Amino acid sequence: MTERQIETLTEGEFAGWSREVNREGFNGLVGAYYYQADDIANMKVAFKAGKEHLNGGGTVHGGCLLTLADTSMFIFSLPHLNDGGAVTVQLDAQFLSPGHEGDIIVATGEVTRAGKTLIYVRGQLTCGERLILSYSGVMARKAARPSGDG
Amino acid sequence: MTERQIETLTEGEFAGWSREVNREGFNGLVGAYYYQADDIANMKVAFKAGKEHLNGGGTVHGGCLLTLADTSMFIFSLPHLNDGGAVTVQLDAQFLSPGHEGDIIVATGEVTRAGKTLIYVRGQLTCGERLILSYSGVMARKAARPSGDG
Amino acid sequence: MTERQIETLTEGEFAGWSREVNREGFNGLVGAYYYQADDIANMKVAFKAGKEHLNGGGTVHGGCLLTLADTSMFIFSLPHLNDGGAVTVQLDAQFLSPGHEGDIIVATGEVTRAGKTLIYVRGQLTCGERLILSYSGVMARKAARPSGDG
Amino acid sequence: MTERQIETLTEGEFAGWSREVNREGFNGLVGAYYYQADDIANMKVAFKAGKEHLNGGGTVHGGCLLTLADTSMFIFSLPHLNDGGAVTVQLDAQFLSPGHEGDIIVATGEVTRAGKTLIYVRGQLTCGERLILSYSGVMARKAARPSGDG
Repeated sequence: MTERQIETLTEGEFAGWSREVNREGFNGLVGAYYYQADDIANMKVAFKAGKEHLNGGGTVHGGCLLTLADTSMFIFSLPHLNDGGAVTVQLDAQFLSPGHEGDIIVATGEVTRAGKTLIYVRGQLTCGERLILSYSGVMARKAARPSGDG
Repeated sequence: MTERQIETLTEGEFAGWSREVNREGFNGLVGAYYYQADDIANMKVAFKAGKEHLNGGGTVHGGCLLTLADTSMFIFSLPHLNDGGAVTVQLDAQFLSPGHEGDIIVATGEVTRAGKTLIYVRGQLTCGERLILSYSGVMARKAARPSGDG
Repeated sequence: MTERQIETLTEGEFAGWSREVNREGFNGLVGAYYYQADDIANMKVAFKAGKEHLNGGGTVHGGCLLTLADTSMFIFSLPHLNDGGAVTVQLDAQFLSPGHEGDIIVATGEVTRAGKTLIYVRGQLTCGERLILSYSGVMARKAARPSGDG
Repeated sequence: MTERQIETLTEGEFAGWSREVNREGFNGLVGAYYYQADDIANMKVAFKAGKEHLNGGGTVHGGCLLTLADTSMFIFSLPHLNDGGAVTVQLDAQFLSPGHEGDIIVATGEVTRAGKTLIYVRGQLTCGERLILSYSGVMARKAARPSGDG
């Protein structure tokens, strides 16, 4: 992973949010993702749904919502990782209402348990007051499975 | 949704598979997705993992795998939809082993129950013999919730 | 279902909680379950773990925790059912810490969406401040599947 | 855990199945559970639904089905445990059709991955040809969390 460069926006609808300058990989393809935190234990991840995030039915693709959910589980876990990595072991989600083009969709959540091997997370995607996705999952610290062993 | 145009490839590693000519929306962004079926009740959906599908750790992003899983649930449901649509109600997944750049990842699965309102699906993503993701979920026929009501 | 008779306890560790006088079926076998609410939209369901609730490892059996979770999803849904019934479509749970003999385990939660067909719920089991189980699920109104159709 | 004593039935509807002679704890309360295997990697767990397993709606309680599912995940994992224990980390389930009084409900399944720390399982509950519950989950080897640490 190359050095990540972060910039904080000062204007526009994401004023006060930060994003990576040179986004790579899947989050670069799917994003831009924006990050904000009152404090490190209370991170938010957001993106704005465009035409490229829609499914054939004209609403935001389930996979697009799940990508934000999966990304946020890692972000929520960061304060517990102590420079180590983590991989998703399991994720489950309920789709409560559709996302639409133009929606700013925000992931918030919490670590419900940070153990020696596993980290448990739950969260929700919202657009304003509207709940879009409810999700929870388990992550494994990378040191705990050195050879990709589950 | 605009008219979908399908072409079947005759050479290359996806010879014998079909894909949409003008891909739009999230599947166009994330794909290309390739489709193949011995028969309509036995569809397979595949894609080849590239650099743009990776996470910061250098393996295929969980959201990318979940996007294929979610897309496949819809594809597996098609024979039961009778020209109606369906939306994902719920999806859960276990991550069994990482996907790598260059992997051809294939979704296979089955409808375990097609009811009047709900369709139940389960499946797996594999690369060759290797299991990558195990997933299951529930879809709701669109007629059953005419106003996006869950 | 026979008429249910409710009594409210005035002493003991469940003082202020209510329970059914003649419990039948699985909740009678597994319980007693105790119910309490500040208001109808904020129900709690509790039981005290005894020797008969343990697994071979000496902690509360996962199935016992899941039974409370499943029961609570129905209880949380009650204010939205208008005298109709509901059945569980899907449930997922994360086991955060073990329950022990003597623990009073309490289910709290919320309806995240009550639609025409489906009701979405999430909750947690706790013992004091300790999180034991985090769960979410989807229920279907009974009228929506008159012949047990999913 | 006390010594377990097993007997194999030679008559009745569970002829050829085995059960514990003195059942204790939650499986003793909820069961009897019956076990059968063509080979050790292909275990089946079954029980017969009685009046005491029903919910208020007159079908088998979701918690009763989930108890069988959770128990079976441990049984399916046994060939991989090498005398160590395992605890459930996560379980998700879809309810496909109701169980009825008198049904013999059978759990079958497979370990999809047995890693150093985690064991992944999926299975289904059936009554004859009818699918009742589809489930999957993750178990953690006990050595991997010596102090109940998740």
